Amino acid sequence: MNIKLNYTYALSDVVGEHGVSPEELSALKDRLADAKKAVAQKKTDGKLGFMELPYKTDETAKIKRLAAKMKGRFENFVVVGIGGSALGNIALQGALRHPYWNLLDKKSRQGWMRIFVPDNVDPEFVKGLSDVIDFRKTAFNVISKSGTTAEGLANFFFFKKMLEAKAGKKYRDHLIFTTDAKKGFLRDISNKEGITSFDIPVNVGGRFSVLSPVGLISAAASGIKIERILAGARAMDEKCAASADALGDPAAVFAALNYLLYQKGKRICVMFPYSNALYPMADWFRQLWAESLGKKSNARGETVNVGPTPVKALGATDQHSQVQLYIEGPYDKIVVFLSAGLFRKTAPIPKVGYSHYLEGRSLAELIKCEEDATRNALAKEKRPNMTIEIPTIDEENIGGILYMLELATAYAGELFDINAFDQPGVELGKQLTYGLMGRAGFETQKKDIEEFKNRFPQKIV
Amino acid sequence: MNIKLNYTYALSDVVGEHGVSPEELSALKDRLADAKKAVAQKKTDGKLGFMELPYKTDETAKIKRLAAKMKGRFENFVVVGIGGSALGNIALQGALRHPYWNLLDKKSRQGWMRIFVPDNVDPEFVKGLSDVIDFRKTAFNVISKSGTTAEGLANFFFFKKMLEAKAGKKYRDHLIFTTDAKKGFLRDISNKEGITSFDIPVNVGGRFSVLSPVGLISAAASGIKIERILAGARAMDEKCAASADALGDPAAVFAALNYLLYQKGKRICVMFPYSNALYPMADWFRQLWAESLGKKSNARGETVNVGPTPVKALGATDQHSQVQLYIEGPYDKIVVFLSAGLFRKTAPIPKVGYSHYLEGRSLAELIKCEEDATRNALAKEKRPNMTIEIPTIDEENIGGILYMLELATAYAGELFDINAFDQPGVELGKQLTYGLMGRAGFETQKKDIEEFKNRFPQKIV
Repeated sequence: MNIKLNYTYALSDVVGEHGVSPEELSALKDRLADAKKAVAQKKTDGKLGFMELPYKTDETAKIKRLAAKMKGRFENFVVVGIGGSALGNIALQGALRHPYWNLLDKKSRQGWMRIFVPDNVDPEFVKGLSDVIDFRKTAFNVISKSGTTAEGLANFFFFKKMLEAKAGKKYRDHLIFTTDAKKGFLRDISNKEGITSFDIPVNVGGRFSVLSPVGLISAAASGIKIERILAGARAMDEKCAASADALGDPAAVFAALNYLLYQKGKRICVMFPYSNALYPMADWFRQLWAESLGKKSNARGETVNVGPTPVKALGATDQHSQVQLYIEGPYDKIVVFLSAGLFRKTAPIPKVGYSHYLEGRSLAELIKCEEDATRNALAKEKRPNMTIEIPTIDEENIGGILYMLELATAYAGELFDINAFDQPGVELGKQLTYGLMGRAGFETQKKDIEEFKNRFPQKIV
Repeated sequence: MNIKLNYTYALSDVVGEHGVSPEELSALKDRLADAKKAVAQKKTDGKLGFMELPYKTDETAKIKRLAAKMKGRFENFVVVGIGGSALGNIALQGALRHPYWNLLDKKSRQGWMRIFVPDNVDPEFVKGLSDVIDFRKTAFNVISKSGTTAEGLANFFFFKKMLEAKAGKKYRDHLIFTTDAKKGFLRDISNKEGITSFDIPVNVGGRFSVLSPVGLISAAASGIKIERILAGARAMDEKCAASADALGDPAAVFAALNYLLYQKGKRICVMFPYSNALYPMADWFRQLWAESLGKKSNARGETVNVGPTPVKALGATDQHSQVQLYIEGPYDKIVVFLSAGLFRKTAPIPKVGYSHYLEGRSLAELIKCEEDATRNALAKEKRPNMTIEIPTIDEENIGGILYMLELATAYAGELFDINAFDQPGVELGKQLTYGLMGRAGFETQKKDIEEFKNRFPQKIV
């Protein structure tokens, strides 16, 4: 694990008033140290389960045994979950497997399973998946912490009927539930019907669960070395904890810079990997950052309506889409590059007889030059940016970066003075959905939304 | 074509100070009418080629003949292009083909080709594609308006060598170039080597090119009825042009609302399809909106650093990721729902014996309720939003919506008083890339960037 944060270009000596000055950073040092202490205290109080996950090596052993067992039997592994039950899975697959994994033949996959994460209740999308998998050779991992998430259950029911039809009485052998250890709909069924299950610790929220069985089972099912992911997360945990100086802790510095730049009106945080493999991690970060820090009330109950908006972009692709805006538009962004030092393939550009300047170079060289050019062009135009340096994309470094960003989120929650671990704002939408679905007990909500809709004359053009 | 814009919830009588008042809208009416006139004038002057594309039916006939010829011969169709040369292709495939198209067998595809759009120079990603396609059965469509885009050429050279090795002397029969009619590297090779080619009109910029051969060839290669896409775009063109009242033109109203809300500090525009099929269209819109409107200077050369930041989100998935922020965070967003009236599959949720409230309903019903709940929850929390209503996802309606958003972009350019058709901000990055790549003639840039990089002490943690 050798993840580093380079924040040279987020500083005022490079980007002037749009950056953080040394004075601002050292003025925050005490608060940052307090944030570290507060997080450590919450950990001690057993509230931050995500910080314990890297040390649960017995769990990885259990998962690996399951994966080895499934390997011979199943072709496909379907993750049935949404939000925090899906994004970590997709991030790990994207980072650590072949970019066209599901199109590779079995031999190229060394017998490991194809992985599908239908993380929506779009009927075309979910039905579409059922068209391309052989249910007799497919395992389904239903993931929901509460065990009651409507989207996960709806998809589970949809697949279950087909699975029963194709796999017959032994269909339960195709199922794995990942849910709360004690309660909820999935736990009850698991107990009653003897379905293989894994626990999501009570003190681990969905968006902080990638290093739990939530994210690790599908990873193991595709042959990813999950124990090395945890080793990388442990190494990061130790690196961050070991730093007596808060400004020596990369997670703390990441939180501090984002917090200070937010105060300067940089309310948009662009996560900008220069690597397709790392692009799904930007999506995972998007949930982590938005849902944790986007809050109406601060810790004292005052209305603050705070929160940076995370945006994902992909290099070099988005140079042809977003960089015009990043370079010339409002000074309302901070850009975070995810930079791969070495790629696992270089893809030499061969000599093809045109005497073109690109012949004899490589795609790796080209994309690295583009990344460096974009970073420096942004800095020259006084656009603050920083780079998370990932020497090689491997299990240890992915574990390290995931953990660093989780920890940074906890620290940022302290700096913004909000609760980074709840999500009260999604409750209204859930209640209205129940009302609209006509679920018993939600008649008031149904009436409420219908009245609201009828109150305004529709403006349609 | 039956696309409608419902903007009830963007108005002040619903969302108060965070919405547009009737007075503000009518105060803008003259400027909006002027914007319509200015765009019409530019069209007359031959500057807005994108407005002519829906009427080029001879081109679609030529493309369909090519597609029919390729159908028997090729299994795979690879689009080699980036930015505007890729995003429209991906949007059309996503909207109008099976969600797992490339995993369907040939029969289920009715013999049409699998489509790949490797729109990056990531070496792992591009090399990865070469692992899963049989070059002997693959056609490559190299797309670049200038014919000189580094990313497109690099990938073309990468694939060309392999293609020559596998397909032998007749490798040229596997190639199609889509480029400027007269000049550029690709045009020269096409002329010299007799490679099949299509023209990108001089007055059509990359991000406005989806309805040209740029976007239509791959669509036809997968069996999409491209003539119906153009018919939908024509219907929208006529609908917008026919409205004497600027506030009866959906493209104009979309531009006006976005402009007025931007002035109220809603600088982030979230494109929020509740449909996986429509998600890639949000990516296409992201380029259109960001690159067109994100500008340093206004039409009079004054520094304005203006531009909304487009963000893509996916319903219902992002209810579990972004909606917390949208509901509770800063009042800095406008949300644009892309709403499918009917899905092409309903995906009934079967009775599976648990007496659960979801049994007997359908995924279509669930996602529609979730969309409606989210829209109303946002409105109740005074978050301005609007909905582009798409009765069915089909060729006509997709053509209509693409054209509406292009036209809206042209109008918005007038309102923001900037040039929506250039992208000066990407030039610096390009020059620095050439410098870093050591391209002849860019020695100054190389020196320049190296000096810049060495000027600042690196801050790394």
